[in-house]
Amino acid sequence: MTTTPISLPDGYSFRKLKSSDYENNYLETLKVLTTVGEIKQSEFEELICHWESLPDIYHPRVITNNSGLIVGTGMLFIERKAIHECGKVGHIEDISVFESEQGKKIGNFMVCSLAKIAKEKGCYKVILDCDVKNIGFYEKCGFKNSGIEMVQRFDK
Amino acid sequence: MTTTPISLPDGYSFRKLKSSDYENNYLETLKVLTTVGEIKQSEFEELICHWESLPDIYHPRVITNNSGLIVGTGMLFIERKAIHECGKVGHIEDISVFESEQGKKIGNFMVCSLAKIAKEKGCYKVILDCDVKNIGFYEKCGFKNSGIEMVQRFDK
Repeated sequence: MTTTPISLPDGYSFRKLKSSDYENNYLETLKVLTTVGEIKQSEFEELICHWESLPDIYHPRVITNNSGLIVGTGMLFIERKAIHECGKVGHIEDISVFESEQGKKIGNFMVCSLAKIAKEKGCYKVILDCDVKNIGFYEKCGFKNSGIEMVQRFDK
Repeated sequence: MTTTPISLPDGYSFRKLKSSDYENNYLETLKVLTTVGEIKQSEFEELICHWESLPDIYHPRVITNNSGLIVGTGMLFIERKAIHECGKVGHIEDISVFESEQGKKIGNFMVCSLAKIAKEKGCYKVILDCDVKNIGFYEKCGFKNSGIEMVQRFDK
């Protein structure tokens, strides 16, 4: 069962990220989530081109507001495994909502929509990692706590 | 900093998974971890071929014992992101050790080796999800708890 996304506000749209989105608030929206750093337009375009060259793996999506500005981000990537009869797992990453647009269920719509894509693509499950404080948000999107995330960071 | 892998027992080896490993205890080792189901040789070979066609993404590795039998499994896959200056994140998946070979630090060697590959490939971090009961194991491999795993499972 996926949780049906609730509606977006009038004029808002859910769509694929495009290489022409460099100056369309995508990176600014990601900055709400974490460190983005300096990314040149050519680097951005190369990255989108790379993601587009692997359409079974990378599913970058955005939500735009009624001015066409990106105000929500999300990535689904799909991993092919041996376990579960050569099953596929969807990984949801980099969910972020522009600060002035929070409270409009944009994050909920993004997460539910990415989970729906994962199901349509034949994944047996979709997973994500989050802070403890965001568990309630993801529960509303149909997720359950299932384990612990562990990390090892590398020095530059 | 990566944690240096401790040594494997004499005669044991760490290497890439090969399409000729279908009858070499790979799937049996994975079954220690979770449901594997029925996988035909042709399906297995197609999957390995798929992984090998994406060598920057999928890094499936095994540890063999002194009879050449697979006794440890692990996967590193590398995701390209926009955040962290178009950074890369390594995901460690499907760590499993054949039951009769447990207690020989095979899992530790696998995890440390995959983390080392992630660092060499330029990842800024490597992450994995685990059960609460395995936190201590992964701490010995140089990992720290950093969040919560959430899951949504789909009916077939």
